[in-house]
Amino acid sequence: MRQADRQALYDQAKQWVLEAGEAIRTSIHKPLRIETKSSPNDLVTEMDEQTERFFAQHIHETYPEHKVLGEEGLGDELDDLTGTVWIVDPIDGTMNFVHQKQNFAISVGIYQDGVGEIGFIYDVMADVLFHAKRGEGAYKNDQPLPNLDERDVQLEAALIGLNNFWTTENPRVETKGIHALVRKARGTRSYGSAALEFAYLAEGIMDGYVTMKLAPWDIAAGMILLSEVGGITTRADGRTVNLLQNNSIIAAHPNIHEELYRDYIILKNT
Amino acid sequence: MRQADRQALYDQAKQWVLEAGEAIRTSIHKPLRIETKSSPNDLVTEMDEQTERFFAQHIHETYPEHKVLGEEGLGDELDDLTGTVWIVDPIDGTMNFVHQKQNFAISVGIYQDGVGEIGFIYDVMADVLFHAKRGEGAYKNDQPLPNLDERDVQLEAALIGLNNFWTTENPRVETKGIHALVRKARGTRSYGSAALEFAYLAEGIMDGYVTMKLAPWDIAAGMILLSEVGGITTRADGRTVNLLQNNSIIAAHPNIHEELYRDYIILKNT
Repeated sequence: MRQADRQALYDQAKQWVLEAGEAIRTSIHKPLRIETKSSPNDLVTEMDEQTERFFAQHIHETYPEHKVLGEEGLGDELDDLTGTVWIVDPIDGTMNFVHQKQNFAISVGIYQDGVGEIGFIYDVMADVLFHAKRGEGAYKNDQPLPNLDERDVQLEAALIGLNNFWTTENPRVETKGIHALVRKARGTRSYGSAALEFAYLAEGIMDGYVTMKLAPWDIAAGMILLSEVGGITTRADGRTVNLLQNNSIIAAHPNIHEELYRDYIILKNT
Repeated sequence: MRQADRQALYDQAKQWVLEAGEAIRTSIHKPLRIETKSSPNDLVTEMDEQTERFFAQHIHETYPEHKVLGEEGLGDELDDLTGTVWIVDPIDGTMNFVHQKQNFAISVGIYQDGVGEIGFIYDVMADVLFHAKRGEGAYKNDQPLPNLDERDVQLEAALIGLNNFWTTENPRVETKGIHALVRKARGTRSYGSAALEFAYLAEGIMDGYVTMKLAPWDIAAGMILLSEVGGITTRADGRTVNLLQNNSIIAAHPNIHEELYRDYIILKNT
C-alpha cells in the first residue's frame, strides 16, 4: 500500500472509530440486552452488533472492494486475506463492557494482502486512542510510543498478562509450564481485554501476554501496534499467526518472546 | 467519634492525600532508586518513603495524640488500636508504580478505637479519589456509590479479583478450591493494587476479591469504603480481620461472601 493511500485510509478509519466510540459512550448507561454465545461466559450485547454493523455498512459503502472480518459475523466470509481486509472487534472485552462499563476497546486492524497496514485500539471510556501505521510507529493519542528495546527487560523483572484460566486445568496448555512462568516473572496481571493488553504491551507497561485461543479480531490491530514498537507476536508454539483462524498467542518484548514459548508453553494436542 | 470531629479530620486528611498525590505526579517521570525488601518482587522506592514521611510528619505535628501505622515503618509501633490511628499505604501497588507509572494508589484509613471512621483510596495518576466516612456512604470523586445489594449478584455471573499466585502452588491456600472458583465465576481479573481492587469492589465493577497475606495498610481504607456500600471483608476463614497483623482476605458483595470462604478456600496450616 502506498503511503498516501495508507494515510487516506487511516484518516477515514480513525473518524469511524471515534464516531463509534462516541455512540457507545452516549448509550453506556442505558439498559442492555445481553445474550450468550458459545458458553455462559461468552457474552454479546446489542451494542456489539450495532457497532459492528456501523463499521460493515460504512466500509462496504465507501470501499466496495474492501472486505470485513468481524466478531459478530456481520462482515464477509473470507477464504483468504487478499486485497484490503478490515478486521474488526466492535467491543473487545464484552465482559468488562457489561460488568464494568469501562476497560473495553474498539479494535480495528486493516490488512493489505495479509500485511498489517493500520491499527486502532480505542479505549472508549478513557477516550485513549492507540494507533499505528506500518513503518510510521505507534502512538497513544498524540504521544509516540518508544521502541521496546530502549528498556532491557528480563523475565524475572517482567509483568506478564495471564488470565487464571490458563493456570487452572484447561484443554489447551499444560499448567506445569504456566505455573513455572508465574513463579519466574515478577508479576502477572489480567485486564479482560486482549486488545487493551496488546496496547499495554506496546506502551511498555506490560512485557508479555500469554493466552490461548484468540480470534483474529482480538489481535489484528494489536499485532500491528506492537510490531511498530519492536514487539513480537506469534502463535504459542512460535509459528506465524494465521488470521483466518483462532490462534493461541505469545506477544512480548523481543528480549523474552522466545524464552516464553520455548521454556514455559507446553501445548496439549487438541 | 462525633460527626463534627469526623468531618474536620476528613477535611484535613483529604487535603494531605491530594497534596501527596500531586507531589507524586510531579516527579513520576524522574529516575527512581528502587530497592527490594522481603523478596526480589517486594519493591520499595524513595517515593514510597518520602510519601509516608509526609503523612507521618504532618499527622504527628497536627495531632500529637494520634498514631500512625505505615508500610515503610516511619510511623509508630503499635500494640493495640486504642485512640485515633491512621493506617497509611503511601503507594499501594508499588510494582505498578515502578513498571506502569499508573494503577497505584495512596491508601489512608483512620480508625477510632479500632472502628473505621474515614477511608481514602486515591488513584493518583487517574486523579480519582474514592472516599468514605462511617455512616455517610462512599463516593468516587463527587459521585455517591450505590449500595451493592441494588444488584443481585450470583457467583456464576461474578467478576473476582484473583492473582495467579493463588492458582499456583503456594504456602497459604490449597489450589484445588481456588481452581474450582476460577471455573465457577464468570471471570477473574488482577490489577496489582489491593487498595484499588477494594475500590473496584465498592464501585461494583468487581464482585469479590480473594487474596492471601495482606498487610493492614493494604486493606484499612478499603474495608471502610466497602462497608459503606454494604460489602463484607473478613479473613479468608470468615473470622474478623485483625489490623495489627497480616490477614488473608475475602472481600465481596454480600450475596457471595460466605459462599466464597465456605466453598472455595481451604487454608493451609502455616
